Amino acid sequence: MKVNVVLFPDFETLDAFGAAEILSRVGEYGLRFFSASGGLVVSRQGVRVATEKQSDADFAGILLVPGGHGTRSLVKDADFIGQLAGAAEKSQYCLTVCTGSALLAKTGLLDGRRATSNKKAMDWVKSVGPRVAWVDCARWVVDGKFYTSSGVSAGIDMALGFVSDRFGPERAESIADGIEYLWNSDRDSDPFADSR
Amino acid sequence: MKVNVVLFPDFETLDAFGAAEILSRVGEYGLRFFSASGGLVVSRQGVRVATEKQSDADFAGILLVPGGHGTRSLVKDADFIGQLAGAAEKSQYCLTVCTGSALLAKTGLLDGRRATSNKKAMDWVKSVGPRVAWVDCARWVVDGKFYTSSGVSAGIDMALGFVSDRFGPERAESIADGIEYLWNSDRDSDPFADSR
Repeated sequence: MKVNVVLFPDFETLDAFGAAEILSRVGEYGLRFFSASGGLVVSRQGVRVATEKQSDADFAGILLVPGGHGTRSLVKDADFIGQLAGAAEKSQYCLTVCTGSALLAKTGLLDGRRATSNKKAMDWVKSVGPRVAWVDCARWVVDGKFYTSSGVSAGIDMALGFVSDRFGPERAESIADGIEYLWNSDRDSDPFADSR
Repeated sequence: MKVNVVLFPDFETLDAFGAAEILSRVGEYGLRFFSASGGLVVSRQGVRVATEKQSDADFAGILLVPGGHGTRSLVKDADFIGQLAGAAEKSQYCLTVCTGSALLAKTGLLDGRRATSNKKAMDWVKSVGPRVAWVDCARWVVDGKFYTSSGVSAGIDMALGFVSDRFGPERAESIADGIEYLWNSDRDSDPFADSR
């Protein structure tokens, strides 16, 4: 199964590559990186990543959407949101990290569903998706095929949770052990819930 | 101050971008990415990152060296090791993640110094740097200007430790809070010491 990562200017580096690292360690998955125009996309931290053009993609498989500063303008970009809606609809599973959930909320696909986001950005995220059942206290939230995580590093925990849901907790623990990571495995325990 | 990240084929994605995320959040630092030939470098996980040519670099500042599968062949690449030695000597601080410490050990600059690495790769790493005082139980180790961390995610903890040493623990805690990360702040506590 393919993991299709959608990047955009000013995406948050660790949002994308924390979850991507975990998913790539599931041997069955292969990563591909896309953006609206293709070519090099520059993260908020100045990492220049080569991408394929989003319109050329078959978005079957797992869709991974990071957050970051770039989401603030992208929620107003109807073309991008339309493309993201199509990709998310075609995906078998759709995972967002941090304010990536604001982008997904803007498509309308989270309306009536439970979801979470970066706890310091929750007021803005709620304003973007007023019909989403936002969860103020969760490391990550699962509703149907949609996985949404809290800020940045929470994407690593969510990705491990996704692996656990698909392949069992031993597989997730083994991947966490492989990267010497202490997995915060309880998705309902959120140490940053009151930090905004 | 510049953070100069040296990449190579089959580097481990999160080794580089976990620590890079932290260091980039120190407003005073700016990231640059280098490789032996310049151009696109592909990580073990298939991330294609644009880099500048190493020989064009002024390596003053902070040098960051990830590990990963690619280190296994690179320790035998005399040209690369020679270039890395020059870069590490010129750097004000030199940080390695995971088996990045094997590359640094091969330069001889760690001889007689304390250092650590990925706990599952310690036997190999020790064989690469037989005159290094390898530490079997440490999340990360500081010896002079050299910071070396355990496997993959330990690079995030080490980078926060580096920030703490330069700017104080409150600054490190603030960055950890910003990425909703639970910092393993005790460098001598190593949950993966006995995992090989």
